[in-house]
Amino acid sequence: MTVVADAATGPGAGEQGGAVTVSFDTSPERYRHWRLEIDGDVATLTLAVDENGGLVPGYQLKMNSYDLGVDIELYDAVQRLRFEHPEVRAVVVTGGLERMFCAGANIRMLAQSSHGWKVNFCKFTNETRNGIEDATATSGQTYIAALNGTAAGGGYELALACDQVVLVDDGSSAVSLPEVPLLGVLPGTGGLTRVVDKRHVRKDRADVFATKSDGIKGQTAAEWGLVDAAVPRARFAEEVRRRADEAAAASARPAGATGVVLTPLQRTETATSLAYPHVEATLLRDERRVEITVHAPDAAPPADAAGVLAQGVDYWPLAVTRALDDLVLRLRTNEPLLGTWVFRTRGDAEQVLAYDRQLEDLAGDWFVNEVRQYLKRTLKRLDVTSRSLVAVIEPGSCFAGPLLELALASDRQYMLDGVFEDVDPDAAPATVVVSGANLGAYPMGNGLTRLESRFYGHDDAVAAVRACAGEPLDAAAAAELGLVTMTPDDIDWDDELRIALEERASLSPDALTGMEANHRFVGPETVETKIFGRLTAWQNWIFLRPNASGTQGALRRYGTGQRADFDLKRV
Amino acid sequence: MTVVADAATGPGAGEQGGAVTVSFDTSPERYRHWRLEIDGDVATLTLAVDENGGLVPGYQLKMNSYDLGVDIELYDAVQRLRFEHPEVRAVVVTGGLERMFCAGANIRMLAQSSHGWKVNFCKFTNETRNGIEDATATSGQTYIAALNGTAAGGGYELALACDQVVLVDDGSSAVSLPEVPLLGVLPGTGGLTRVVDKRHVRKDRADVFATKSDGIKGQTAAEWGLVDAAVPRARFAEEVRRRADEAAAASARPAGATGVVLTPLQRTETATSLAYPHVEATLLRDERRVEITVHAPDAAPPADAAGVLAQGVDYWPLAVTRALDDLVLRLRTNEPLLGTWVFRTRGDAEQVLAYDRQLEDLAGDWFVNEVRQYLKRTLKRLDVTSRSLVAVIEPGSCFAGPLLELALASDRQYMLDGVFEDVDPDAAPATVVVSGANLGAYPMGNGLTRLESRFYGHDDAVAAVRACAGEPLDAAAAAELGLVTMTPDDIDWDDELRIALEERASLSPDALTGMEANHRFVGPETVETKIFGRLTAWQNWIFLRPNASGTQGALRRYGTGQRADFDLKRV
Repeated sequence: MTVVADAATGPGAGEQGGAVTVSFDTSPERYRHWRLEIDGDVATLTLAVDENGGLVPGYQLKMNSYDLGVDIELYDAVQRLRFEHPEVRAVVVTGGLERMFCAGANIRMLAQSSHGWKVNFCKFTNETRNGIEDATATSGQTYIAALNGTAAGGGYELALACDQVVLVDDGSSAVSLPEVPLLGVLPGTGGLTRVVDKRHVRKDRADVFATKSDGIKGQTAAEWGLVDAAVPRARFAEEVRRRADEAAAASARPAGATGVVLTPLQRTETATSLAYPHVEATLLRDERRVEITVHAPDAAPPADAAGVLAQGVDYWPLAVTRALDDLVLRLRTNEPLLGTWVFRTRGDAEQVLAYDRQLEDLAGDWFVNEVRQYLKRTLKRLDVTSRSLVAVIEPGSCFAGPLLELALASDRQYMLDGVFEDVDPDAAPATVVVSGANLGAYPMGNGLTRLESRFYGHDDAVAAVRACAGEPLDAAAAAELGLVTMTPDDIDWDDELRIALEERASLSPDALTGMEANHRFVGPETVETKIFGRLTAWQNWIFLRPNASGTQGALRRYGTGQRADFDLKRV
Repeated sequence: MTVVADAATGPGAGEQGGAVTVSFDTSPERYRHWRLEIDGDVATLTLAVDENGGLVPGYQLKMNSYDLGVDIELYDAVQRLRFEHPEVRAVVVTGGLERMFCAGANIRMLAQSSHGWKVNFCKFTNETRNGIEDATATSGQTYIAALNGTAAGGGYELALACDQVVLVDDGSSAVSLPEVPLLGVLPGTGGLTRVVDKRHVRKDRADVFATKSDGIKGQTAAEWGLVDAAVPRARFAEEVRRRADEAAAASARPAGATGVVLTPLQRTETATSLAYPHVEATLLRDERRVEITVHAPDAAPPADAAGVLAQGVDYWPLAVTRALDDLVLRLRTNEPLLGTWVFRTRGDAEQVLAYDRQLEDLAGDWFVNEVRQYLKRTLKRLDVTSRSLVAVIEPGSCFAGPLLELALASDRQYMLDGVFEDVDPDAAPATVVVSGANLGAYPMGNGLTRLESRFYGHDDAVAAVRACAGEPLDAAAAAELGLVTMTPDDIDWDDELRIALEERASLSPDALTGMEANHRFVGPETVETKIFGRLTAWQNWIFLRPNASGTQGALRRYGTGQRADFDLKRV
């Protein structure tokens, strides 16, 4: 992992600091905190945190506690297991320290971090845990938490993201969420939500549990539903293996398939740009905006599944997804001042749709399935990104199928009606094309498609769009169907877009974050949307309150021997 | 309205101030801001705010802007329309100023208010708007917003709570949510949620709307779904009346019925107590706790609907509900330091159940229906109350049916196993009794019963409880069914309860608020739960951020001629 961290202005330097550049590049041979071992169809991920391996200075990662750097490795491992190891059908997550699974997010790291760093850290860790659930649900890799010792706070939340939780029953190892009683904050990675909404723990027991700093042990933890089983140490390994074997036997992962190695990303960086094959971003710092362009493939898709596999990381849908994933993560973490992301596309929509059809035709292929699920997760990252997203649809663009999802994930869509007369009066006017990619392949966290979310409560509008699938829709048609927000013509285009972007940049970043979070998730809610929409908002609020982060707050005073001095008013 | 407001330490005095005592007592002849007129089956509520009638000093309520005092009158009017006016079948809400419906919550009031005051104000106004929707849905009183002029911010949110919105189409009157662009905060009473989730406005249009400070006018507002109709002034009154008459004709409100006048509450106050008929509260300031006792009726219910109506406000279920409603509102607003509310009951469970049966048997009667819906809304107030709620179930208690809902709304339930040997060794041990009141009569905001929420994901547990309906369940049985959290015996009782309450009082009030909000609302979400669970949390966060409430923030600088000076980082 390449990390450029300026100690003087690290994340602890407060809101105005933050000259930390985080890279998400890593690979198993470079891991400092995780061991990945594979035994037949069962992989084991062992957490043994290097105390001195913190991402930025100022804290030691004791008792298997983690920071962003530890979680970047976990994310990498989860991704590689899916792509590189078709043979793996169950993944055991366990702790490499004596009687300690994981103590959760490092408290000193949290206490010294700026508000923005804490929030972004929680977002990434939440996405990684959702990805673990997604691997179990859609990839035939069942995650099993083997709690060899205590799982506290974020440690237990990591276990909660696994399909099954087995706790060693040794009279001392416990699961706990000590955030409320010890730190005066909430569990930040879905703990409260998953306890009641996923594991269905009775709410009064959840209340007792989340206020009991030493947690719940043994058979009581099993009886309350906090874990699936509490097993004596003598039978622990055997029980974990039994569950792993059982899950592996039920998996539909292919036999004898060859994985696709996730080779290092090709990325070119300058102070004002990030470029990948098929994706480039220009950082307009004065305008506080990023202009992102995604390019269509320049060749037809390979003939069949074997050809797709042979292309591996160069297969256009995977290459684009990897680039977008990395770009989203880097911009979110490293460029908080760039508040608006503008999406453009360039190239031949027919080629995009040819790949789109292939992704659908070969959906049963394990590798193509992985590509589709990865694109789904990457689009979800956009949905929860606290930046204003704007799609700009011009002649020469290719917002078709999967690339149209970028527009639909955006807060607004601007589409030129006609052509730029001064540039190319003979150009074909821009069109957008709807496909199955927009009709169910890549659902949002709320379980709806982006079209269903857009037209929530208007099933007729979704049906009208569906009826036009496959047709190139010009600005008038797209506006009529409700697919775009504004369709200025050549005369108004520059002014209208400029004013819209300038206005956006002038608004309160916080109010925009709250507004967008509320608009993007209409309709039904899921564990995922509750985590990002509700839990995160409460946590953000609590992080800001003096009772947590003030000099006398619980988070700041933890470990000092002094108790927090609370403002005791309820709000 | 009796208001004791100490100007020196008003709500503007910051978190540590707040020696304001708010009373919720009022009646139409005392209104300063609303006019209530009734014409046959249509009532008209006209907002004409007295600029100088602010609840506390420091601001003028210009342009029909409102503060808590204005909303207390609105709440009173909505309640009285339901109970006192069975003949009213449609309610028109309109503005009494020229070309101005309502400018929303007063900005200077918000800017000078403490964080706690703002949050509590938003909660109450949200509950009142939910109550308007409830009147339309369950009481046959359809609310129609007649926007005689601009409805901005909270003004438009009030309209959004109405079943229909008619806007005058005069070239200038608009609906708007200018909070994000002008104030750097979110609409605080459900605006973002209702625009997309209730009125199904397309999310990109919602984005344009909520960032456009002057809002949307005329036919565009109608086309986007922001209003139901935009009508020229010449036809405005006629169109509003037509819709009111149509709604009235469809109402099932009774003909020729006599209303029940909501006479002033009997309330006795001391520095450490609040007492009503059937309900009393002891304020233990040193322990930061309120002990609330609800008494069973001391007589059998009246024989029939006529007898019920004759008792009017003295009918036990209504008297208890009114007392609880007032108590909840006063404690929330005036006693923020009392962080735990302990519920006890005393009396004959058989009498409680006799009234409960009557409420069910006579559910079709308009007055009994109003009592039931009012109890439902009052229990919902508990669900969104930012206090820890604990039910204590002892010998002599009567947690049966509707009173058992108080226990189920609580975060924990402590039930004595056996009797207090030193007090009354011959007492009957405490029991609880489940009835239809717990099985569907009083759903939570998430649409589930409190039992279904408690046992979310365990339908078998709900079925087991249902099978025991009507049976007195002792501590062992209640514990077996999962109805109570802890069942200490006489020997452990005092210590266990004392330690639990002391521990609770030692925790971060903010973390408890966030934790309880997440635990109480499992499973499905509705507009209501999104407003309290998601929108509120984001708003709380944004209220605290310097970009809103700092000296250079948008909320503080509004009206000064100076633009806000934002920290432009996205979080």
